[in-house]
Amino acid sequence: MPNRTPANAQVGARVRISDVTPELDCGRYAVKRVLGELVEVSATIVADGHVQVRAELRCRRVGGTRRWNRIPMLEASDEPDRFSASFRVETIGRWEYTVSAWVDAAATWHDELRRKVEAGETELSAELAEGEQLLGVELADVETALDTPGEVRVAKTSLAHRLAVVVEPVFAGFGAWYELFPRSFGGFDGVRAVLPEIADLGFDVVYLAPIHPIGTTNRKGRNNALVAEPKDPGSPWAIGDEAGGHEAVHPDLGTLDDFDRLVARARELGLEIALDFAVQCSPDHPWLAQHPEWFAWRPDGSVKYAENPPKRYQDIVNVNFDSSQAKELWEALLGVVEHWIDHGVRIFRVDNPHTKPFAFWEWLITTVHEDHPEVVFLAEAFTRPAVMSTLAKLGFSQSYTYFTWRNTRSELESYLIELAEQTDWFRPNFFVNTPDIFHEYLQEGGQPAYEARAVLAATLSPSWGMYSGFERAAGLALRPGSEEYRDSEKYQCSAGQVGGELGRLVRRCNEIRRASDVFRHVDNVTFVETAHERLIGYVKGRGTDATVVCVNLDPHDDVEGLATLPDSLDLPPRFGVVDLLSGARHEWRIGDNYVRLPPGGAHVLAVR
Amino acid sequence: MPNRTPANAQVGARVRISDVTPELDCGRYAVKRVLGELVEVSATIVADGHVQVRAELRCRRVGGTRRWNRIPMLEASDEPDRFSASFRVETIGRWEYTVSAWVDAAATWHDELRRKVEAGETELSAELAEGEQLLGVELADVETALDTPGEVRVAKTSLAHRLAVVVEPVFAGFGAWYELFPRSFGGFDGVRAVLPEIADLGFDVVYLAPIHPIGTTNRKGRNNALVAEPKDPGSPWAIGDEAGGHEAVHPDLGTLDDFDRLVARARELGLEIALDFAVQCSPDHPWLAQHPEWFAWRPDGSVKYAENPPKRYQDIVNVNFDSSQAKELWEALLGVVEHWIDHGVRIFRVDNPHTKPFAFWEWLITTVHEDHPEVVFLAEAFTRPAVMSTLAKLGFSQSYTYFTWRNTRSELESYLIELAEQTDWFRPNFFVNTPDIFHEYLQEGGQPAYEARAVLAATLSPSWGMYSGFERAAGLALRPGSEEYRDSEKYQCSAGQVGGELGRLVRRCNEIRRASDVFRHVDNVTFVETAHERLIGYVKGRGTDATVVCVNLDPHDDVEGLATLPDSLDLPPRFGVVDLLSGARHEWRIGDNYVRLPPGGAHVLAVR
Repeated sequence: MPNRTPANAQVGARVRISDVTPELDCGRYAVKRVLGELVEVSATIVADGHVQVRAELRCRRVGGTRRWNRIPMLEASDEPDRFSASFRVETIGRWEYTVSAWVDAAATWHDELRRKVEAGETELSAELAEGEQLLGVELADVETALDTPGEVRVAKTSLAHRLAVVVEPVFAGFGAWYELFPRSFGGFDGVRAVLPEIADLGFDVVYLAPIHPIGTTNRKGRNNALVAEPKDPGSPWAIGDEAGGHEAVHPDLGTLDDFDRLVARARELGLEIALDFAVQCSPDHPWLAQHPEWFAWRPDGSVKYAENPPKRYQDIVNVNFDSSQAKELWEALLGVVEHWIDHGVRIFRVDNPHTKPFAFWEWLITTVHEDHPEVVFLAEAFTRPAVMSTLAKLGFSQSYTYFTWRNTRSELESYLIELAEQTDWFRPNFFVNTPDIFHEYLQEGGQPAYEARAVLAATLSPSWGMYSGFERAAGLALRPGSEEYRDSEKYQCSAGQVGGELGRLVRRCNEIRRASDVFRHVDNVTFVETAHERLIGYVKGRGTDATVVCVNLDPHDDVEGLATLPDSLDLPPRFGVVDLLSGARHEWRIGDNYVRLPPGGAHVLAVR
Repeated sequence: MPNRTPANAQVGARVRISDVTPELDCGRYAVKRVLGELVEVSATIVADGHVQVRAELRCRRVGGTRRWNRIPMLEASDEPDRFSASFRVETIGRWEYTVSAWVDAAATWHDELRRKVEAGETELSAELAEGEQLLGVELADVETALDTPGEVRVAKTSLAHRLAVVVEPVFAGFGAWYELFPRSFGGFDGVRAVLPEIADLGFDVVYLAPIHPIGTTNRKGRNNALVAEPKDPGSPWAIGDEAGGHEAVHPDLGTLDDFDRLVARARELGLEIALDFAVQCSPDHPWLAQHPEWFAWRPDGSVKYAENPPKRYQDIVNVNFDSSQAKELWEALLGVVEHWIDHGVRIFRVDNPHTKPFAFWEWLITTVHEDHPEVVFLAEAFTRPAVMSTLAKLGFSQSYTYFTWRNTRSELESYLIELAEQTDWFRPNFFVNTPDIFHEYLQEGGQPAYEARAVLAATLSPSWGMYSGFERAAGLALRPGSEEYRDSEKYQCSAGQVGGELGRLVRRCNEIRRASDVFRHVDNVTFVETAHERLIGYVKGRGTDATVVCVNLDPHDDVEGLATLPDSLDLPPRFGVVDLLSGARHEWRIGDNYVRLPPGGAHVLAVR
């Protein structure tokens, strides 16, 4: 028998709030902002009848004052029932927001009275009496009434749930990264010595390959050889030996004190030190003996090394997240992160997070952020888009991307359009190379290819990065068709060096990035027609902030084309530009602009 | 102090289900289907690691068996991690569905084993031992293992919420409506007499203007005159006099028994009788005396008549949904609907639902559906899109639309594209005219305009309707620029009549609609280029089901153009068509097809 009596809460509910943006997965996940950014909130709000609806956005810092900051929402002039307001996030940490709406009975009465006066009605004494009752004031005549707006809130409704924003430091969303192997630079002291050079190139983050003791069991030799020579140092991702695991430092690199000095010097120079966080162990890691229950043992008593057939990683074993002792394992891994936070680390580049439980990362990042909202996690997940998106939603501040494999004009354009739709949760970091990814485009294109890729990464993505050597166009492929470097630093030391042929370009790119806010966003890009498949053209921002970028994607030949600027960019018909790379000045206009660029060459044209 | 210990529920949760479709407003509202339709459910499902994920769709009729029907979901070949399955709704009423997913540990093991064999690995005894442990069977060798798929479900996850489908009778989504004023036909007996003619024209629903007693206070005269002449019958929407209100019938129309006979005869002919449900009262309605608390009394003791300045409805008063006795009012209105359901009515055309509380309609429709899932509500809401969409989401089976005001090719195309995006909840009913809407296009265009609009409505929308007289191209405007009829039946009787000059075309349209399923959907339309702004062309369906429609929107001149069929319609390069309107046969092809049509003329071309 149905319940034929309406509930009290139903009777009187007149306002409905829906289609709130931003909102991820029905509020399951928080959206992301960096310090100082705006959160622009919109909602569709309707009420029955011809009433005046009012709405407000409420926001507050979680864990701060209990009082909501209330911001009136305005109805869009071009979209009835769509209300918007925004707030600026001024402290890092978790914020929450919600929407409330109500009927303003006084404004409704006032609006109806006005319409009646406009329609020529004159017998309005009943309307005046209603207004007096509603507003609790005396209304001498219609003119007085029309001048007495008042406000009477009825039928107030709020969103059933609160939505969250995670606010992170600026370097969570904007920065230039430089990756190196400390052992190639002589350890912590050696890295400390080159920090000024890295800072001088305009980098913000120095990311170190793992710094922990390296196992000897099944140690990999040079070029990934299955058997190491006695002096081969092994892969730093084979973490742990008898001396220690994830919380220890490799003795060849120095001491923990040396590390602390490195971090301190970096901070003086405005650099962040990013550590690698790889949840895996060499077979010699102390945890195997101390916590055998954290590992998966095979029926024959052996422990399974890491593999993803046909790939095999004989020098590492994975922890077993399905273990009955998984809780303790989670807590130990949290302890590792907190250990390095205590040593001044604020950025963790997480190795292959997609092969560990989503729930673990969500718990780890949330827990770390409760005490340390300034800590940033970069996901090194090259996997399916839905998985990368999930990692971003559950808390990773930024992510590696497919940029390395997007080299043609159409590939770049469609990829940027895809990324622009995800800015509420997914922040890309465009690495131009990594120790694992040395793309054929660079191998074959030589220095012009490097130049093109540097300008693309630096101008298309708020975060970009390179692995040391890129700035010298250095490196040979392991073999034709391979994206691995020959004599890779993953398995041997090399003579570390900062700077080189591309140094000037890299420095200039980083200067340009810092000088304009247009490079802090992914979704402010407008691609333009160029009349040539190898000439990519795009505009970052609009109006007087607009910066036009043209890059010759051909590393071998000059290209000429016509960059066609649409009239939707708030630019005047003709305007002067200055090429921020060369200093040259040109006249540009809405419509066609002739462009000729040498192999790998680029314009970065600021509107003057 | 944060909780540093993970919850049991977190540890072991490995699968995430998101972006389920269909899902309205995060599951707040049910999606809609008519009997026999498919519900195609998709979800993005990811797990960490290189595991084999399996998923199933679960569905069941609410209030039926507790057992879920389980349908395996398949991963899309072109979109990794996107799983889909569908179910057919075979009884009317409320259904629910949800998605479950898990890791298949056996399939994961099997997949890894296969990849190792393919990679040439031969030492696989540990793998076999693992498989034996996992499957609980003996595995003699690798070949046996590869032939032993098994299934071991771990880390199972389900959507946190159930999603709902409201399944309605076919006439909720597909039908041809004929509206009339019973008093113009001599009351219930007179209407009963013309039912065969209406059925012969192919209509499915006969919608009657209100049949209740009409008030005398402030009764409107002919052509909406403020003062009625003694014999003027008044507007039937001014419901109620001393003799009765919403549950009574006007004595001039006959008795309740006569009404019952009308309904019975309609049912014999396969027709539904739709009643008007207008929540408003004449000042003489018995409720004003019996339940003064259901009305809003002004400070001077008068009751406010209905108005939306500058419009005034002096002959009706609205009930007061803000009354402290609103619950009793809601229940009384439910009683009205149930009274007519008891008399065989299954369709209610609701007058101006957007001026009554959303929560009231949601409660009313849900409550009625609990006992009577076959009952259909049509919303007569011509208001802002967000409000019309809200009414549809909260339960109205179908809605009037802006079709009447969409007369140009581009207006029609963009409106249909908009409607096609809302098919999960919003079902349009394209009325070509109503007693309130006599569009200038018809007034000026004459019979060719009527013909064009009939073909458009009948082929573009699964539900379409007309107000009696349309099929004779009858009626004059009240005055130039007005959409009101002169001598409108709203205020006087006329000589009711069924059929006329357009009768043959209307009958043929309804035959064509019944003969092909392509006319049961809104979103299967592809608009085609025609090289002429006044020639609209579209294809319903595809392949051998495709039906090509071309309509000359110009009611004064012939039009010629080229209907360009794209190659995306699964049609052969050349094919024969038969014009279902004229019987003529033609050869058509992918690409350009020459079309010449007289004023208001149309082709409805079935592929042969």
